[in-house]
Amino acid sequence: MPSNTAQKLAKGQKEISVSEFFEKNRQILGFDSPVKSLIMGVKEAVDNALDACEEAQILPEVVVKIDKIDQKEYRVTVEDNGPGIVSTSMPNVFGRLLYGSRFHAVRQSRGQQGIGISATIMYGQITTGKAATARSKVEGAEAAKEIDIIIDTKKNAPILLREDYVPWNEKEHGTRVEFYMNGRYVTGKQSVLEYLRQTAIVNPHATITFIDPEGKRFNFERATEQMPPLSKEIKPHPDGIELGTLMNMIKATKERNLAKFLQNDFNRISERVAREICTAAALPETTRPSNLTLESSKQLLEGIGKVKIMAPQVDCLSPIGGNLIRKGLKHVLMDVKPEFYAPPVSREPKVHTGNPFLVEVGIVYGGDLPSDQPVQILRFANRVPLLYQQGACVVTKAIESTDWRRYGLEQRGGSGIPFGPAIILVHVASTKIPFTSEAKEAIASVPAIQEEISLALKACGRSLKTHLNKKERKSKTRSKFEIVQVIIPLMAEKTAKIVGKPVPDLRGTLTKIMNVVWIDDSVTYEKKRHRVKVQIYNYTPKQQRFKVHTVLPKGCLDLGSCSLQPSEVKEDEKITWQLPKIASTDLYELSFDLKGLDQDAYSETEVYVSGINPVDVMGADPLPGDWDLEGVNFTEVEAPVAEKAEDEEDEPDYDESGEELNDE
Amino acid sequence: MPSNTAQKLAKGQKEISVSEFFEKNRQILGFDSPVKSLIMGVKEAVDNALDACEEAQILPEVVVKIDKIDQKEYRVTVEDNGPGIVSTSMPNVFGRLLYGSRFHAVRQSRGQQGIGISATIMYGQITTGKAATARSKVEGAEAAKEIDIIIDTKKNAPILLREDYVPWNEKEHGTRVEFYMNGRYVTGKQSVLEYLRQTAIVNPHATITFIDPEGKRFNFERATEQMPPLSKEIKPHPDGIELGTLMNMIKATKERNLAKFLQNDFNRISERVAREICTAAALPETTRPSNLTLESSKQLLEGIGKVKIMAPQVDCLSPIGGNLIRKGLKHVLMDVKPEFYAPPVSREPKVHTGNPFLVEVGIVYGGDLPSDQPVQILRFANRVPLLYQQGACVVTKAIESTDWRRYGLEQRGGSGIPFGPAIILVHVASTKIPFTSEAKEAIASVPAIQEEISLALKACGRSLKTHLNKKERKSKTRSKFEIVQVIIPLMAEKTAKIVGKPVPDLRGTLTKIMNVVWIDDSVTYEKKRHRVKVQIYNYTPKQQRFKVHTVLPKGCLDLGSCSLQPSEVKEDEKITWQLPKIASTDLYELSFDLKGLDQDAYSETEVYVSGINPVDVMGADPLPGDWDLEGVNFTEVEAPVAEKAEDEEDEPDYDESGEELNDE
Repeated sequence: MPSNTAQKLAKGQKEISVSEFFEKNRQILGFDSPVKSLIMGVKEAVDNALDACEEAQILPEVVVKIDKIDQKEYRVTVEDNGPGIVSTSMPNVFGRLLYGSRFHAVRQSRGQQGIGISATIMYGQITTGKAATARSKVEGAEAAKEIDIIIDTKKNAPILLREDYVPWNEKEHGTRVEFYMNGRYVTGKQSVLEYLRQTAIVNPHATITFIDPEGKRFNFERATEQMPPLSKEIKPHPDGIELGTLMNMIKATKERNLAKFLQNDFNRISERVAREICTAAALPETTRPSNLTLESSKQLLEGIGKVKIMAPQVDCLSPIGGNLIRKGLKHVLMDVKPEFYAPPVSREPKVHTGNPFLVEVGIVYGGDLPSDQPVQILRFANRVPLLYQQGACVVTKAIESTDWRRYGLEQRGGSGIPFGPAIILVHVASTKIPFTSEAKEAIASVPAIQEEISLALKACGRSLKTHLNKKERKSKTRSKFEIVQVIIPLMAEKTAKIVGKPVPDLRGTLTKIMNVVWIDDSVTYEKKRHRVKVQIYNYTPKQQRFKVHTVLPKGCLDLGSCSLQPSEVKEDEKITWQLPKIASTDLYELSFDLKGLDQDAYSETEVYVSGINPVDVMGADPLPGDWDLEGVNFTEVEAPVAEKAEDEEDEPDYDESGEELNDE
Repeated sequence: MPSNTAQKLAKGQKEISVSEFFEKNRQILGFDSPVKSLIMGVKEAVDNALDACEEAQILPEVVVKIDKIDQKEYRVTVEDNGPGIVSTSMPNVFGRLLYGSRFHAVRQSRGQQGIGISATIMYGQITTGKAATARSKVEGAEAAKEIDIIIDTKKNAPILLREDYVPWNEKEHGTRVEFYMNGRYVTGKQSVLEYLRQTAIVNPHATITFIDPEGKRFNFERATEQMPPLSKEIKPHPDGIELGTLMNMIKATKERNLAKFLQNDFNRISERVAREICTAAALPETTRPSNLTLESSKQLLEGIGKVKIMAPQVDCLSPIGGNLIRKGLKHVLMDVKPEFYAPPVSREPKVHTGNPFLVEVGIVYGGDLPSDQPVQILRFANRVPLLYQQGACVVTKAIESTDWRRYGLEQRGGSGIPFGPAIILVHVASTKIPFTSEAKEAIASVPAIQEEISLALKACGRSLKTHLNKKERKSKTRSKFEIVQVIIPLMAEKTAKIVGKPVPDLRGTLTKIMNVVWIDDSVTYEKKRHRVKVQIYNYTPKQQRFKVHTVLPKGCLDLGSCSLQPSEVKEDEKITWQLPKIASTDLYELSFDLKGLDQDAYSETEVYVSGINPVDVMGADPLPGDWDLEGVNFTEVEAPVAEKAEDEEDEPDYDESGEELNDE
């Protein structure tokens, strides 16, 4: 009876309210186990508190308290000193899903969906049958508004069981939300405490207090009084914008001609760029947007794709910054005493489907970190730690698809999570984080984001490899070097004494035995400056003349302090020195200062060489052509001669004559 | 100006329509890369087609066609022979998110959310600006209704650009949907073709035709004319139900007293059980549901938790079944010729938060499967292949947290995805699959589900281990055995001939050399029956008497065919034989038939022993106490004597006297 089935199905078809949907699919919101539910509840309330404080430029003071009611039930209270919520808005903010102020804005914030806190209250209500209580006071108000609230899930609408004005004299302004939920309180890697600890790491301007179910108090004091810069709301960036979105914008615009529309409704389109786009799209600048058809909208989109448009401003984003990443990591890792903190990498902002984003990466290595386990991954999105769904996250995918064997970590087959005593931290900041679900636990595999993470990982991995290479070579060759350097002269001296002859000049002998240019570098910190010394010993029998290259923190090199002026400075960070001739057995010392860096921010120098056969050098890698340091497969100095010849061919831009680089 | 901020925020607060939400968060629906988007689009349409056909009990014929329009744009057409959609329903089915017939029903179906096809149409519209076309005809109708449809995302409502009645004479009934979308067509592991191939594996009653962008035609012919049983709609099962849901049900019930409410609004609550629950909850049976307060509802929930309630009926679920799983796997794997198909395990239905579910697992090993890579995982949910988000899925978590070293696969540290030449197939069937997101790519980590998958994996892993143990032992000891068995008698014969004496009886000598009970089993298939032979050679110097245990497919043992009657049959599958005394050097043969199984369904027998020192046995593992086969850490027969003693202590239920098992 197929036609019968069609009628039957038609009868069953109805609309589903969004809260009804999430009531039945609460795992999508992250409420899929008792442990996780409790963390989710705390997280949604704390994210809101931090967002509100930042929007009002108030240094956040957040208090989280969890009380155990019975075997399954907990009460969660989260209180902040934020600007408060206007009392008429309170019912919808707490009692309606898909309601909020941050959904339509193009700027970085923790909350984006208008789901979190109301979903938490709904989950609490489903599992305990109890209402939530919200209290809020705005500045200048005499009293706080307090409501007891439940959600009508069939209608996705708030029901107020009580509303009152209550005195709240100890607060000038702020919000407190209190809800009951079934859950399970645990400690460990995935716990409320760990969530708050990681939150404190990436929000050093916040003071967070936590009172656990046993009444134990944890204080995460703020590490800085400086607010992160307020992320600014911007217009959509045209890069990667989609036809549908473009057509919606065309429909909504108030502008009367195409050029003005492009200029005023988008980020980074100047008058000139708008004109260029119109030309590329073969559309008159004076076209009325309302006259654009599907076909001409497609032309316009193609035109946008053809014109080079500036990257979005950074000020819609609020990155953590290399310094604070390092500080944060040091703070967490005091106990394990890592041997090496790779300088954190902050990439320039890029765009995914019209949304600016940027990636930051830090790597920590060694010390007491376990060496026989997969590396630990710390993921953050818009300053919020991601504790769950590691396997689903683009961060993990980028890590897994990087060949870490190149950077000194163990990795079977060159893919998958590498093993080794390391921690990899990745922060993605965006005006719109593309989470895989409303639970906001993992970032979707958007190709543009994965690419940026990969590049940042490689850049940071490169520092790690430089460190490990140095360490390995030094330990390998140090002993040989010492024997030759120390023992042979001693032997010569003794022998000379015995035979009663003068001590011979051994330098020629030593160079014959060593036959290597030895490069050593060191960093010292004094008077708020880093002093870098690069010592070059020519232990070969002939005179050497070559170039030394370093990658330094952007704009930090103090040119006045250089013992030798660089022959080229590229992009404010890639520095080349053409060394003078160094005679056989001579030592040449290059030194310079770095200014404006925290003491912690710099501890080791990347040194590369060119214009010299790389197998003759110990202590520095050959510079790959075009400074292509991300993709470089580091050549071991012990490489056989055949490979060496190839390496030289790979570097057509560098030759013995010391000509300028040619990379345009 | 914090108060200012509160006002500003309040102004920005608005309601977000669900389609607007997904327009901006389309990665949540799985549209996060061009390749994936195309697969998602096909998947949503095919899922709907199969669901509709099954509901009408029509053998599905589905045709999928993809045309390339330009560099980015494709047209997808999916046509079925289902019951059709009533014309008044068409706009909402295709043009409104969160609208459908399957959301409120408690039974297994592919679609559950009322999101898929309308979200696909929305995505097509966003990326190409083009409308979708849907055509449907119900039985008896003279013409098909055809509409061109777009979605008003601000309102989450359909807009019809055209509606017509068109002749569709070649179809009695059916639906065709056609949409344009940006995407990228690829072949390989994550592709439309692979999705359809895997769909065909687990839906052997469907014929699926695919015409790729180059016009190449792929036919997946149905392998069976038999429809899977129609999954029945049931009432919610009380197991794991939540307070909120219970209170909603109390509010909605038409019953006038508690006992009737329990009996009629729930699955598996009989009059007796309803009475027991009332007693356990200390609530009178006559309580009016509307009089139940929060407190008494909680009491009721606790009462439900205290009473044992039957597992839900199976008929709301539509498992694939062991036979078809094996067939499906064989079908896919013809080329790699695996050496072993572990008998697929189908677990009994269990319940997660009121929703019945069951787990099926199959494992394939060896042949040309690559041995130096992670095992391949095939995941299915309600007969739909899951190609993405493997890392986020409870299936993967269950696999990762199983210690596969116990079952013969390589696994660093005993956790993570194991390495080896194996494929692991897992199917989860449920009236409600808790997906991690609306994209339905991964199943959330619900503890009850993970537990069931783990148990099924272990049961299947056990078969694998039995196979590998046998293989290893046989190869290890076969040569020794052959030498002793064959060469020594030959030598004796020759020597006897030379010295002119009679050939001596070597049995005693052989047993001294072997000193082992050798157990060999074989399976042959003839006249639609499997004949199992277990041969027990007593190559020890003393008489032996012990028990042999097997786990056979449920209810398949033909008692009439047994050469020795079992001394105990437990749960229709755990069979124990008390063997008679076997004198030194004697052979005892136990044989029996299995009936009702496909030839492919059985190839190897699990044989365990008890009442004998396990180190004296070759070819069978010791039975762990209480048949605890899932958690068993298989003792190697080469185990040192100290361990042997412990093993014996672990088996208090078994002793030399051959008494009955005591496991109640």
